[in-house]
Amino acid sequence: MFKHAQLESVKAWVGDPAHGALPLHARIQRAIRQLILEGALGVGKPLPASRALAQSLGVSRDTVEAAYSQLHAEGFIERRVGSGSFVSKRTQRVPRRNPARATGPAQAPLRLSQRGSAMFAGGGVRDFLAPRPFAPGVPETRSFPLQTWERLGRQVLKEHGTQALLHSPPQGMEPLRRAIADYVNLERGGRATPERVLVLTSSQQALTLCASVLLDAGDHIFIEDPVYHGARKAFDAAGLVCLPVPLDADGMLVDQLRHATQQAKAVFLTPSHQFPSGTTLALDRRLAVIEWAREQQAWIIEDDYDSEFHYAGKPTACVQGLDPYERTLYIGTFSKSLFPGLRIGYLVLPPPLVAPMTIARTLLDGHSAPIAQLTLARFMEGGHFGAHVRAMRSVYAERRDVLARLVHEHLSDFVEARVPHGGMQMPCVLIGEIAEQAVLDAARREGIDLLGLTGLHAATPCEAGFLMGYAAYTPEELEIAIRKLAAVFRRLSR
Amino acid sequence: MFKHAQLESVKAWVGDPAHGALPLHARIQRAIRQLILEGALGVGKPLPASRALAQSLGVSRDTVEAAYSQLHAEGFIERRVGSGSFVSKRTQRVPRRNPARATGPAQAPLRLSQRGSAMFAGGGVRDFLAPRPFAPGVPETRSFPLQTWERLGRQVLKEHGTQALLHSPPQGMEPLRRAIADYVNLERGGRATPERVLVLTSSQQALTLCASVLLDAGDHIFIEDPVYHGARKAFDAAGLVCLPVPLDADGMLVDQLRHATQQAKAVFLTPSHQFPSGTTLALDRRLAVIEWAREQQAWIIEDDYDSEFHYAGKPTACVQGLDPYERTLYIGTFSKSLFPGLRIGYLVLPPPLVAPMTIARTLLDGHSAPIAQLTLARFMEGGHFGAHVRAMRSVYAERRDVLARLVHEHLSDFVEARVPHGGMQMPCVLIGEIAEQAVLDAARREGIDLLGLTGLHAATPCEAGFLMGYAAYTPEELEIAIRKLAAVFRRLSR
Repeated sequence: MFKHAQLESVKAWVGDPAHGALPLHARIQRAIRQLILEGALGVGKPLPASRALAQSLGVSRDTVEAAYSQLHAEGFIERRVGSGSFVSKRTQRVPRRNPARATGPAQAPLRLSQRGSAMFAGGGVRDFLAPRPFAPGVPETRSFPLQTWERLGRQVLKEHGTQALLHSPPQGMEPLRRAIADYVNLERGGRATPERVLVLTSSQQALTLCASVLLDAGDHIFIEDPVYHGARKAFDAAGLVCLPVPLDADGMLVDQLRHATQQAKAVFLTPSHQFPSGTTLALDRRLAVIEWAREQQAWIIEDDYDSEFHYAGKPTACVQGLDPYERTLYIGTFSKSLFPGLRIGYLVLPPPLVAPMTIARTLLDGHSAPIAQLTLARFMEGGHFGAHVRAMRSVYAERRDVLARLVHEHLSDFVEARVPHGGMQMPCVLIGEIAEQAVLDAARREGIDLLGLTGLHAATPCEAGFLMGYAAYTPEELEIAIRKLAAVFRRLSR
Repeated sequence: MFKHAQLESVKAWVGDPAHGALPLHARIQRAIRQLILEGALGVGKPLPASRALAQSLGVSRDTVEAAYSQLHAEGFIERRVGSGSFVSKRTQRVPRRNPARATGPAQAPLRLSQRGSAMFAGGGVRDFLAPRPFAPGVPETRSFPLQTWERLGRQVLKEHGTQALLHSPPQGMEPLRRAIADYVNLERGGRATPERVLVLTSSQQALTLCASVLLDAGDHIFIEDPVYHGARKAFDAAGLVCLPVPLDADGMLVDQLRHATQQAKAVFLTPSHQFPSGTTLALDRRLAVIEWAREQQAWIIEDDYDSEFHYAGKPTACVQGLDPYERTLYIGTFSKSLFPGLRIGYLVLPPPLVAPMTIARTLLDGHSAPIAQLTLARFMEGGHFGAHVRAMRSVYAERRDVLARLVHEHLSDFVEARVPHGGMQMPCVLIGEIAEQAVLDAARREGIDLLGLTGLHAATPCEAGFLMGYAAYTPEELEIAIRKLAAVFRRLSR
């Protein structure tokens, strides 16, 4: 039988409003389980007859019976016909749980793996959540044609029905791969076919895949310096050794690849609009990097993340389309051209890499959501994607001009803007004495997000400054934020 | 000026129906680019005056001008006022592209990384695509309440608008984390809070994360033998050394952990319904594995993948809820309980692991789609999830019974069924002379998918046989397939 304290403990647990979501019999079951786990009811101890406990708790006997059945099913109690219920021998090794949680078991120091610790220390790829000026990499979504998107989504469900709830092929749905191949060929001068497209959740996932399928821990990869932090962190997480290659106004100094003292198995490039500098890789360098890849049998990882948005003529055709040797892996994403919550990015692969990459992807997370893929395929086929990109291109071009003008008007004593030909952000280099970190910190306190440039560089000294995203903010929002930022600078320069 | 052959080549390219999707000026630009890339137009070679080329092609001069502008913007040509356009010096390093693609550059043998090759050789986690009997792990989706789901999705978009298009917090949306915590506490006897839940795309992603954040390449992990292949492959891909531990009717022989000659930093368990055997880990062993984890400061990775479907009373409470030492990581998924195309799974984590795991997840693929998360949160809050699981539980229980009866009636000369208490698949052990692979191959030719048991075992010899999924197939579909399978067996046994 229960002691008085035990009965009170059961009553208290059952009556605790925190447990109100549980049905009554489950609460009784948990309360008794708790007594056993805390060691208050040892092996062989009898439980009250169900009728007696029901009376004490003021519940029906069936309720207590249900609780006892579950305790029995889970192995906590044994039931002997005629002699009642007893705490089971299976509970012999109950962890000595300290009921006073405050003085609970001493926490051992957290032991992560070395790679886990390194990833943790690196801080991950923090997306700016509620976008506020000047968080980079965020598109304008407030004018997204959501009604069209919803209509196409309804069509998909109407036509595919519950078939659309099943697994997608791990390589991606065929209609979407076809639409992507058409787009890459048409708009990016690429050489894609549906068979060469691998649908992923994001360019980040593409980077993770490339890093592990093409390279082993300890292998070298050339990266741009400065470099997109998401790529750098994916490569670091995969244990790669990153060899930074400097840039000039024509992009990466690719001649250095050939003459580097340490060779590498791959090079990572953002040729359309280098992240963060905004420069475009010149044609001769594109051809030179292809030649290097052929000579070294190395891979070119081309991240074409925001090439849709080029404001002076069409964007330069991608490296992949210039490469006859099939050494280039082309990464694209819809996070910038449509919306980040879509979770669709892709790789256009050399044919021999399609199967290995697809299989490696199944190990990471299986496949991508079919409904989103089918909706996107329709959105592209119907011309809505092209129309949206064109509309956003002129919106972003205007916002870039507005930001350039505002920086010139309000911040020219403090920074020099490097107005880009495309993309969604503008680098500004500090020209005064004020430290970069001081600006970032003070701006954040005023509700302004800036991405510091120093953290993106490998070599030091480098130009200090920050990246200003402009795509997601109206001219009014940009102006308000610039005025605040100017005030921050004036305060710091006093 | 162009030679005749060059002009013909441009005309052919422009007129090729395969390029019909490109606007006219883009076709002309690409055709000339092609000539340059093929080396037919070397550095310094003049291009025809735009007026002359326009006339030859029968297009407007503006069209040719647009093509030339783009060639110029991309660096292919130089334009000198008064003297026309010339192939640019930047094309000096044009790869020697062989225009006859059939005799193209000799393909070097494919060089993947060692880990990439190993993943490729392992074959990945192949989901059965168009589910057909007896593909395991697939839920019944034909009766999914799609209209309710769509209605809730519309509500989400109506209330959140384009906000729902932005990034999700990498840990997951708060309403979903709350709904998951409530569910794990209520239905699985867990100890969850919204702060401890990490929303992912799948249990596969959870396994990948655990493998890399908790363990380094070369570290040991105890696994069940036989084991879920998706887990084994994720651990192999992360470079872990898997130490198989045998099972009996009460699940893993956890006493062997303590006395193993090689210790491990973690153990992987499917305690509710062991995959593939279907056994439930007994309470005393649950407590023993917790004690082992405390002593060794090791981690318990608890994959509770289909615990919703238990047909005799409620499923046993999860290990996580019994562990006062916070050594257990609980993995759940909605791929089985709702539908695979949803792409939502989760981890319930010890508090110190929340930040490291969330950060590591940002490196893998950023975050999960917000609209799906918010829709699922509503589906759970509104009681639809519970109702669907209850409905499916009785459907699957019936199908299990039907399959057990059918196997008994038609296959008892060949296999012994191990009827499980829960889950979505039933293991059958071969009792005759017929080889497992022969059965799998012959069945596949008849349109029947079976997952072989031998491939899931580490130790040999092991019981040969196969796993039969039953959840996604009606009794009629099961019967048709069983009759076919019986015919396969009769043919093989002749």
